[in-house]
Amino acid sequence: MLQHVVEACSVLQHCEAACHMAIVYGHGGELVREHIQGENLNWALQSQQKGTGHAVSQAIHLVDNDDVVLIAYGDVPLIRSSTLQCLAQGLRDHALCVLTTELVDPKGYGRIVRDAAGQVQAIVEEKDADDAQRQIREVNTGFIAARGSDLKRWLQQLTPQNAQGEYYLTDCVGLAVAEGGSVNTVLCADPVEVEGANNRVQLARLERACQQRQVEKLMLEGVTVADPARLDIRGTVETGQDVFLDVNVVLIGKVKFGNNVTVEAGCVIQDAEIGDNTHIKAHSVIESAVIAENCDIGPFARLRPGTVLAAKAKIGNFVETKKAIIGKGSKVNHLSYIGDTEMGDNVNIGAGTITCNYDGANKHKTVIGDGVFVGSCSQLVAPVSIGDGATIGAGSTITKDAPVGELTLSRAKQMTLKGWQRPVKEKK
Amino acid sequence: MLQHVVEACSVLQHCEAACHMAIVYGHGGELVREHIQGENLNWALQSQQKGTGHAVSQAIHLVDNDDVVLIAYGDVPLIRSSTLQCLAQGLRDHALCVLTTELVDPKGYGRIVRDAAGQVQAIVEEKDADDAQRQIREVNTGFIAARGSDLKRWLQQLTPQNAQGEYYLTDCVGLAVAEGGSVNTVLCADPVEVEGANNRVQLARLERACQQRQVEKLMLEGVTVADPARLDIRGTVETGQDVFLDVNVVLIGKVKFGNNVTVEAGCVIQDAEIGDNTHIKAHSVIESAVIAENCDIGPFARLRPGTVLAAKAKIGNFVETKKAIIGKGSKVNHLSYIGDTEMGDNVNIGAGTITCNYDGANKHKTVIGDGVFVGSCSQLVAPVSIGDGATIGAGSTITKDAPVGELTLSRAKQMTLKGWQRPVKEKK
Amino acid sequence: MLQHVVEACSVLQHCEAACHMAIVYGHGGELVREHIQGENLNWALQSQQKGTGHAVSQAIHLVDNDDVVLIAYGDVPLIRSSTLQCLAQGLRDHALCVLTTELVDPKGYGRIVRDAAGQVQAIVEEKDADDAQRQIREVNTGFIAARGSDLKRWLQQLTPQNAQGEYYLTDCVGLAVAEGGSVNTVLCADPVEVEGANNRVQLARLERACQQRQVEKLMLEGVTVADPARLDIRGTVETGQDVFLDVNVVLIGKVKFGNNVTVEAGCVIQDAEIGDNTHIKAHSVIESAVIAENCDIGPFARLRPGTVLAAKAKIGNFVETKKAIIGKGSKVNHLSYIGDTEMGDNVNIGAGTITCNYDGANKHKTVIGDGVFVGSCSQLVAPVSIGDGATIGAGSTITKDAPVGELTLSRAKQMTLKGWQRPVKEKK
Repeated sequence: MLQHVVEACSVLQHCEAACHMAIVYGHGGELVREHIQGENLNWALQSQQKGTGHAVSQAIHLVDNDDVVLIAYGDVPLIRSSTLQCLAQGLRDHALCVLTTELVDPKGYGRIVRDAAGQVQAIVEEKDADDAQRQIREVNTGFIAARGSDLKRWLQQLTPQNAQGEYYLTDCVGLAVAEGGSVNTVLCADPVEVEGANNRVQLARLERACQQRQVEKLMLEGVTVADPARLDIRGTVETGQDVFLDVNVVLIGKVKFGNNVTVEAGCVIQDAEIGDNTHIKAHSVIESAVIAENCDIGPFARLRPGTVLAAKAKIGNFVETKKAIIGKGSKVNHLSYIGDTEMGDNVNIGAGTITCNYDGANKHKTVIGDGVFVGSCSQLVAPVSIGDGATIGAGSTITKDAPVGELTLSRAKQMTLKGWQRPVKEKK
Repeated sequence: MLQHVVEACSVLQHCEAACHMAIVYGHGGELVREHIQGENLNWALQSQQKGTGHAVSQAIHLVDNDDVVLIAYGDVPLIRSSTLQCLAQGLRDHALCVLTTELVDPKGYGRIVRDAAGQVQAIVEEKDADDAQRQIREVNTGFIAARGSDLKRWLQQLTPQNAQGEYYLTDCVGLAVAEGGSVNTVLCADPVEVEGANNRVQLARLERACQQRQVEKLMLEGVTVADPARLDIRGTVETGQDVFLDVNVVLIGKVKFGNNVTVEAGCVIQDAEIGDNTHIKAHSVIESAVIAENCDIGPFARLRPGTVLAAKAKIGNFVETKKAIIGKGSKVNHLSYIGDTEMGDNVNIGAGTITCNYDGANKHKTVIGDGVFVGSCSQLVAPVSIGDGATIGAGSTITKDAPVGELTLSRAKQMTLKGWQRPVKEKK
Repeated sequence: MLQHVVEACSVLQHCEAACHMAIVYGHGGELVREHIQGENLNWALQSQQKGTGHAVSQAIHLVDNDDVVLIAYGDVPLIRSSTLQCLAQGLRDHALCVLTTELVDPKGYGRIVRDAAGQVQAIVEEKDADDAQRQIREVNTGFIAARGSDLKRWLQQLTPQNAQGEYYLTDCVGLAVAEGGSVNTVLCADPVEVEGANNRVQLARLERACQQRQVEKLMLEGVTVADPARLDIRGTVETGQDVFLDVNVVLIGKVKFGNNVTVEAGCVIQDAEIGDNTHIKAHSVIESAVIAENCDIGPFARLRPGTVLAAKAKIGNFVETKKAIIGKGSKVNHLSYIGDTEMGDNVNIGAGTITCNYDGANKHKTVIGDGVFVGSCSQLVAPVSIGDGATIGAGSTITKDAPVGELTLSRAKQMTLKGWQRPVKEKK
């Protein structure tokens, strides 16, 4: 969540010269710190939880007197940089600028109380509000813009004389008014943008709203999405043109699509690169794989880390690959496990083929040459090598290298036992 | 649906002493009766469909004169117990209390008509309403509270002198007013709560609203849900802390999660117990299984009834288990069928292993000792037993018991046929 | 999208005698033309993009003077035929009838400006509107109805004297008023119905709204849908009674359900026929298959084109079928590939069975008689035939026909190698 806020703020850095950001964190915040990326970030520890005014005080030494200071919140992830820009610009000719929003049900929020001329007089908390004030639907979001010198002076005047015994940043509004300063407001039209995540239900709602924004961005970049409400983007997606993402696709980490990629329903793709015209069929699960152009994958394919597919490769249903280099035009169409394998071009792997890469203690490698044909239900017991153009008979257990161009197999003779009787259903 | 209503009503039983519930049912209701659970339920048959007033008459013998009677509806499943409590309390100092709601489009509903002082005068049905009355947006929900003695007297005065020829409970309002009694109302703020299920479209909408309530409850208990709109809870869920449920999980029957369980996208879990730290990967289907802590399951795992996993067991992709006891740390990672099997600890089952439990007539059992290694693509033809520490060579058909600690296999010799020619593509 | 509009218009054809439709298309429209189905369609090419008035001019030669002409838009797919009918009827006694709608945010749309008596005076575009006009929330949808003779006269009077240099159909309103003709309006209550698809985000929203309509229609026909928001219908569905579709089912092309069919979560079904009482379990993918009554499919089944199941057949988990005729009561329960196969009745196919239909050059056929039992992990190397009542031993590679009623197998002897030592974990 904080990352979203940092990114919204970062946009402002590009607009204004010599801009920096300070993040106030509490206990446990070191963990968060490691995961946050951004330029010109300063971190300030708030070792005790004494209110929002106190939090800002922890970072005030990073502020110059003529800085314009924007106060944002790490648990309000949907704030837009354009809104923050409006807030900063709203400070011009005013002592303070407060971001407000209008709620259908303002209960529990600080109301924006104005005089007859519409000037902000105070922010009145729910419990201190009279009946008329409770009717006010414009509420405080907590986001403010102020000048460094003013903020420093006000922070020193804050007192914890309230029910919670905390230093409230909100009190700066009263201090500004008392000094004769004018307080401007910027109204945030969409209340969701300034909604905080106070429990898992709210968090989930914000998370979905955040997902929707990312999905819409992707769609405007040229991706057709079957149902925006059923696409999850949990990371960054780079995309070509005319990509189609069907319902319930989940994209995790860094995913890169070429042009004209189709991803069918229910696919989960993590940290993968997918080339032009590749078609990923329903319910495939892909992780840390590089897939070239014109490949055909799934349905029910599972590509594990280290899978690299060359152009026109095919991985079919109920096939698992892991650390597998698959050459151009090679096919593993059904019910196979290909692990720790280097496969050449134009190979055909029959259904039910297993590369036996693990002997119970160590992993070994299987090398398969160009143009190999492996019959169904074969086991390639690694370390083993299948020569170019070799054919492996169906049902073989291959424990020694198979020579180039020849048919290799292990097979018991087919026989028929005359007169054998089938078992009969036991009485119970 | 009725179950939800019964549960909402049951909460009141705990608040009030000596409270009981009567359910009026029509033809076919016996079937429903078997599925409804609750304390102090009385059932009354309405053998003819003669209106709501007639329905209540069928159960009125169960009512004492000084009882407070709440009338609820089995096809209005989202009613909250707190609303019913309000309704009951609204009866105090009044002859009758009616639950109302406000609709944007009140068309088709009975309007609440009040006098200048705001006192309810009548409930006027759509077809009897004049233009001014049609503008009224407050409508009757059908839910009422009344005293037993009053209700009995009114029911006897109801007549079927109306278009439908039915006895309307609503007419009690007019009777109460005619007697000089005052009619109170309680406004239900959320119209969905009092919405009835008249067709499959409405039913589906109510079902979703009901799902959402259960999901929110789960979230407040400590479950993180990737998308609340895409979680289905069809039964009861007991949960530890820090459980994560990804999109499109379906939970059926009784499901119990320990702490820190992760369930990825698309999993369907029915009647299962899942231990701490267990990770269930995408698109797994689990039914009637008991899974211990620190297990790793899926993606694409299918655990059928009678599957019991000990701690740290792994069931991988395209693996089916049925009546299978899997010991601590044992792994069945790929493309296998394990049925009617008892497996010890630290076993490794190679890809493509099949327990042949069915001979066409009877099912037989496979017993696998501790520390066994089964090579890929082996068939264990039950009844068969694999001794502790035994190794089975890849591709073996094991029809007799394999001794402890030794390598057992069935394998034809690998050979290469020189000069064999591959088939050539036929011309068509 | 255009197809939806054509269908909405087609309904009108059935109401009115001698009705026809003209579709104006631009460059690339030939491709669209091939995919649009409908009666009495005429196509007119608009080779240059010179505005809506110009577009209509391209087809005006198809219009008779006393025709009632309805102008609709191919990128406004949700328009209802009932709305178009209202629009046509609204022309009676008027020179022109305009379809309008009310928007909360009318920005960017042409406002409907009326005189004090409520008569339409003009449609004023956003950029030409004064402040008072900008407050008007009733806007032009572009849909109009006019008589052929009037329309022809107005089209000739249109000029491109505007910012875009285009011929605007909207200007007909001004021309009608100038002639003293009265302009009627029909208000479309649901703005979504007249929303155009200008980018992928809007397109997706319209697509979802369109899906919802189809889903609701299906529900009213007798289908229970677990979550209407999570069902996709991309084609036509014919259905019996008491069908249940669980979450995230995707139906493509022509799908026909019998009575009492259950489809579980995540199934993708394309061009298939599914008989009474058949149960399709979670995450099955079915394409171009015919499935009889009382079948049991999935979970994780993949039925490819040419699959035909007789009554009571079972296709279990991780099973792929292709060009496969499966007889009555036959079972392929686990981890198998059945391709180019004709299977009789009451066959049992063991787990891990593969029909080896491809020799690297050509596809061959497997024929399996009635009552056959194939042991697990067998390969049937086609062309091959298994006689009625035959049994195939587990793990066999069957390359020659197996005789009727006998046990046929290929199997190496099971042996135990005493003293064999397992590999030891290598130090790295």
